[in-house]
Amino acid sequence: MRSTQIPLWDDRDTGLLTTYLLDATPTVSDAGKRPAVLILPGGAYLYTSDREAEPVALRFAAQGFHAFVLRYATYYKHFREDGLPPVVDEQYAFPQPLLDAGKAVMMLRERAEEWQIDPARIYVCGFSAGGHLAASLGVFWRQSFLCDALGTTAGNVRPDGLILAYAPLDYVHMAESMGEVSNEAVKQTWTMVSQALFGTANPTREALERWSPVLHVTADTPRTFLWHTGEDELVPAVNSLLFAQALAAHKVPYELHLFQKGPHGLSLADETTARPGIPADPHAQTWFDAAVRWMKMT
Amino acid sequence: MRSTQIPLWDDRDTGLLTTYLLDATPTVSDAGKRPAVLILPGGAYLYTSDREAEPVALRFAAQGFHAFVLRYATYYKHFREDGLPPVVDEQYAFPQPLLDAGKAVMMLRERAEEWQIDPARIYVCGFSAGGHLAASLGVFWRQSFLCDALGTTAGNVRPDGLILAYAPLDYVHMAESMGEVSNEAVKQTWTMVSQALFGTANPTREALERWSPVLHVTADTPRTFLWHTGEDELVPAVNSLLFAQALAAHKVPYELHLFQKGPHGLSLADETTARPGIPADPHAQTWFDAAVRWMKMT
Repeated sequence: MRSTQIPLWDDRDTGLLTTYLLDATPTVSDAGKRPAVLILPGGAYLYTSDREAEPVALRFAAQGFHAFVLRYATYYKHFREDGLPPVVDEQYAFPQPLLDAGKAVMMLRERAEEWQIDPARIYVCGFSAGGHLAASLGVFWRQSFLCDALGTTAGNVRPDGLILAYAPLDYVHMAESMGEVSNEAVKQTWTMVSQALFGTANPTREALERWSPVLHVTADTPRTFLWHTGEDELVPAVNSLLFAQALAAHKVPYELHLFQKGPHGLSLADETTARPGIPADPHAQTWFDAAVRWMKMT
Repeated sequence: MRSTQIPLWDDRDTGLLTTYLLDATPTVSDAGKRPAVLILPGGAYLYTSDREAEPVALRFAAQGFHAFVLRYATYYKHFREDGLPPVVDEQYAFPQPLLDAGKAVMMLRERAEEWQIDPARIYVCGFSAGGHLAASLGVFWRQSFLCDALGTTAGNVRPDGLILAYAPLDYVHMAESMGEVSNEAVKQTWTMVSQALFGTANPTREALERWSPVLHVTADTPRTFLWHTGEDELVPAVNSLLFAQALAAHKVPYELHLFQKGPHGLSLADETTARPGIPADPHAQTWFDAAVRWMKMT
């Protein structure tokens, strides 16, 4: 395996791509061009979570995928211990993360020959905010605001498939349901995400709609695999149900696994990603094998 | 195992319950009261499918469930080979199948001591029309039209959990989408089901709403496991998405597995239920193990 870190931009301090490139060998039959998966960790656009990065890349690599982890732009540079507002960097607010994600898919396509990637099988797998980012790429890939900023044509930016893990996909619904939430931590997270995504803690309906992938699904949206837990308090599972409905309405093939139990942020839900409050879950962890079977379908 | 056939009614030629009762033994630790599952095969209310009956009962029995298959009332007595309209029996039109299903759950509760059933863990698992029937029991169990006809209180009829396989749950949506359908076999099935369910090939909106479980979900609906395939042409997967949304809105715990591929009527999707046009499917067949894990959750 060749694991290296590649900055996406010459002129920006964001967008760091880590490769997990499988060695080529003539001794196994699928050693030619392989599918690739770009992993977008979550972290509420405040940071990118280690739990949704390398462990996920290694599981995909073990299944024969070239894997990549993207540390995309996050708006909050760092949190202060003294309770003062966190240090932010306005230029890294949304849609900079989307430019990073698009740039990373472009790089995978540009270097497909060198890296022995099948350029028609580039998946993007995002968790939580990273799932929102993956879905955004899936619905905005042909829009000029994105392609022009990247200086490319839409085809280079389009993912061939999306894997969306407990992703916020309908911010109109999110904002409405926030009125019923009593959990202070959830409210606080929402405020911070709003700041990073919309530049304000109280976004207008227009702003909410602008960055709600569910409202921008078309027949050109890539096939999509979604999973979620019904007990997710931070991002209600209804986000995935509504996105599945939008895909169905546009006849885009999709798959959805919605487990009754489990908190937000399960990642692989196995021992490699467990942490206090988020134990391994033998039932929910079946999402990964289901996703791989789905990715390998022809 | 004790497998016997028990008629539900003294005065009606319908509702035949087949038991698959596990032997009691003191040599294994869970040999006391066991959970039970009542299986309602599909068949568009025209017949009850063998493919969704005994093979399913045996898989559940092998997992430690007392299993039961109910051959509920079907409106079409038999089809004629001469192309004439099928012979129907009006008294077995809907809601007679629902009375049968409710009567069967009552019998499981009444004979719980004799059969060593845990009366708080009686699941109802229905396929296609049988899924509609299971869901109907799940939403109508406390309504007087059902309890009065059965001469019992609501608690005896309520399932403790539902397993709904590719079930039509929203007939308003079904009727609307039928306008876009070009497949003649699908149209013809719809006409026959309409006759059996609504007594007419052109039901009113009121009639469609009356027997659409999705519109009658409440906080008292039992926890539910749903699965479906995105390619289902006979019963669009949106039925399951909408039912999941209704459950979520009423905070009823649920689980949903929606596989991208596979036709209507997969049953177990393994070799025991495969038939021409409906081959075994290694991916979709994972629904069964997921359902058992979900049923065993505490």
